[in-house]
Amino acid sequence: MVISPQSLTAEFFRPFGSVIEAGAGPAELINDGRTRKFADLARIEVLDGQPVSLHRYESQPVELPFLLARLECHPLGSQAFMPLHDRPVPLVVAPAGEPPRADNIKAFITNGQQGFCLNPGVWHHDQLSLGRPSAYLVIDRLGAGDNLQVVSLDKELWLQL
Amino acid sequence: MVISPQSLTAEFFRPFGSVIEAGAGPAELINDGRTRKFADLARIEVLDGQPVSLHRYESQPVELPFLLARLECHPLGSQAFMPLHDRPVPLVVAPAGEPPRADNIKAFITNGQQGFCLNPGVWHHDQLSLGRPSAYLVIDRLGAGDNLQVVSLDKELWLQL
Repeated sequence: MVISPQSLTAEFFRPFGSVIEAGAGPAELINDGRTRKFADLARIEVLDGQPVSLHRYESQPVELPFLLARLECHPLGSQAFMPLHDRPVPLVVAPAGEPPRADNIKAFITNGQQGFCLNPGVWHHDQLSLGRPSAYLVIDRLGAGDNLQVVSLDKELWLQL
Repeated sequence: MVISPQSLTAEFFRPFGSVIEAGAGPAELINDGRTRKFADLARIEVLDGQPVSLHRYESQPVELPFLLARLECHPLGSQAFMPLHDRPVPLVVAPAGEPPRADNIKAFITNGQQGFCLNPGVWHHDQLSLGRPSAYLVIDRLGAGDNLQVVSLDKELWLQL
């Protein structure tokens, strides 16, 4: 099977989390009028009182078509990814809850300006980049505890544009 | 008085917060070896249990020299700024606690790849940009409560490179 990403929009991504982008809500004017603040685009939920921490990822790109062998989830907290570059980024998700099957997986691709935040427990492929080495700011729960589940997919599923 | 920024480094910024950058600690190899993770570069502390939220700022640049008329602080939580561009950003800070005086203010400038996280209560000028319109991801405490203090400086202080 082959899955092709659709454009990332707040509406279609709502079951999985939030899109971090200008225009997702009204802008507030702050800093003596110099700054438009697009406020509260995503929240970092942590379900067990552990701290919220910031990480930098530096990732090698993948070649397409790319075999999506496994998905993972973090049941104890949200995880947000903000690209520190302006190229489109693919993401592959499935609803929180039961382990995903190849036929309920969705793929999205950003417009080059968007970040995204996954709700706790949302299944997702690990972070993918296209074209060239790419950096990200990642924000999530830190700490010990069982916050990583990984499943292998039941069918061979390839990501292709 | 004129203040000129020094290069932002973890060592000199430690009294005020954390620098968000590659190389601040060892990298962990994740995502089947495709990603170098520079983990736990900064923590978002929230002192009263309110949520952590993500915002996008889009800011107009300032002209130098720039008059630093007021500083502010957020006593109930950290505030992190990650530039979504690769140009140097100035920041102006003073130690948490007593209202700042012009003579205990420090100015830093990023190297174009760094973000920074202010500890709760650290006095700082509002977010400044140079050269052209600039976007940022901002991460901080959300919610009601007295989380903003503003003071006017006791002397005329100008930021200049």
